[in-house]
Amino acid sequence: MQRIKCVISYDGTQFSGYQIQPNARTVQESVQDGLTKIHKGNKVVVHSSGRTDASVHAVGQVIHFDSPLAIPEERWPLALQAVTPDDIVIHSATYVSKDFHARYSAERKEYRYRILRRSERDVFRRHYTYHYPYPLDVEAMKKATDLLKGTHDFTSFCTPRTEVIDKVRTIYEVELYETEDELVMRFVGNGFLYNMVRILVGTLLEVGNKQRHPDDIKNILEAKRRESAGKTAPGQGLYLWRVEYNN
Amino acid sequence: MQRIKCVISYDGTQFSGYQIQPNARTVQESVQDGLTKIHKGNKVVVHSSGRTDASVHAVGQVIHFDSPLAIPEERWPLALQAVTPDDIVIHSATYVSKDFHARYSAERKEYRYRILRRSERDVFRRHYTYHYPYPLDVEAMKKATDLLKGTHDFTSFCTPRTEVIDKVRTIYEVELYETEDELVMRFVGNGFLYNMVRILVGTLLEVGNKQRHPDDIKNILEAKRRESAGKTAPGQGLYLWRVEYNN
Repeated sequence: MQRIKCVISYDGTQFSGYQIQPNARTVQESVQDGLTKIHKGNKVVVHSSGRTDASVHAVGQVIHFDSPLAIPEERWPLALQAVTPDDIVIHSATYVSKDFHARYSAERKEYRYRILRRSERDVFRRHYTYHYPYPLDVEAMKKATDLLKGTHDFTSFCTPRTEVIDKVRTIYEVELYETEDELVMRFVGNGFLYNMVRILVGTLLEVGNKQRHPDDIKNILEAKRRESAGKTAPGQGLYLWRVEYNN
Repeated sequence: MQRIKCVISYDGTQFSGYQIQPNARTVQESVQDGLTKIHKGNKVVVHSSGRTDASVHAVGQVIHFDSPLAIPEERWPLALQAVTPDDIVIHSATYVSKDFHARYSAERKEYRYRILRRSERDVFRRHYTYHYPYPLDVEAMKKATDLLKGTHDFTSFCTPRTEVIDKVRTIYEVELYETEDELVMRFVGNGFLYNMVRILVGTLLEVGNKQRHPDDIKNILEAKRRESAGKTAPGQGLYLWRVEYNN
């Protein structure tokens, strides 16, 4: 048995999220089904750096699985691509040691969220951005992001539907940058709670449209109650961008 | 009765093309169904500047229809959007004279074709570009485009499955421009034959990959035989970009 690490991307539009669930099309099941074909019907379990929700995309999701097959490293992407639907792309494969675990070895994760800022809808970006046709005070949002950086208890930014007990996480970077008609928010941290990025984005949007003052972020963090934070932004603007590992 | 001209965009991915056909999801039927709802069940016929094939997109398709309803011009886009699926966007509506016809009044049309030039697939652009991971001599392609400009008999660049007899068209502009990882071809003309842009693109790609010499374009035009030209490029890279009318 050898352990293989793969970097994959997927378009979340047609998936009910990453994680396997009954009667739903998921990324995990699609990849596992492909691997099971390659292994002549023997089931292969795939582990990821973490799940993503329905309609959420991945540019650089990391997965791992174990295989007894003697396929050269550089052949794995094409072999797996051939048995995987075309809304998943297999970018690379590397043989790694048995210590490696896509989830437990992850050191840093990056998410991005794309907001389409224009009055008209864009039919080509309807699944890839959140259309927000209202004015935004980006400077106020930037002030708010400064208060999010660092190590905090993010209970207020986590859905109550979670089994995770320790809600302390560290955000290393929050960056807002503007393209022609989009505002993109970049979050880099040591880990993110369930729905955390989407609640961060929803709250920052409420700062941007003047419903909240940037300093509110302090009170929200202190409250440790989901109700203190803003709405959960929709899934289709969210991208799991990159997962980093030591070595 | 008043005549209304609308500019619409659509994502061609989930449509079997623009034109109504039995047992298929089409743009024309989707818009007509919406208009029929607005008109309390009375069928409304929609005319377009021309049809687009399955998987072909439109950024600025123009349609017209007649209506007895006294809806203010600026309310039409929202009214029609409300009864139209979300892979069609209604951008504008204008009351026009009865002389106006979306097809017969069109003076110039612009198409664009997006080629994704990188070795890796891009899961987010699989429906919006043609992935071409091979080297291309863009300078040779530009030389070939010079020979396409002007008034020619484009029989060689038209599918034989057409009822059109006069195959003389004028191409005013052909421009190739490069973005970060795409080559985009822009064609402006007084009209385009069935499959003409896709065959032009397929032929230019054969110049780009050195299968053909740029000067071949002259022989292809003179041959007036579809077999002389290159392959038909796939539909998902093609966009009906703009339709121009006098006044």
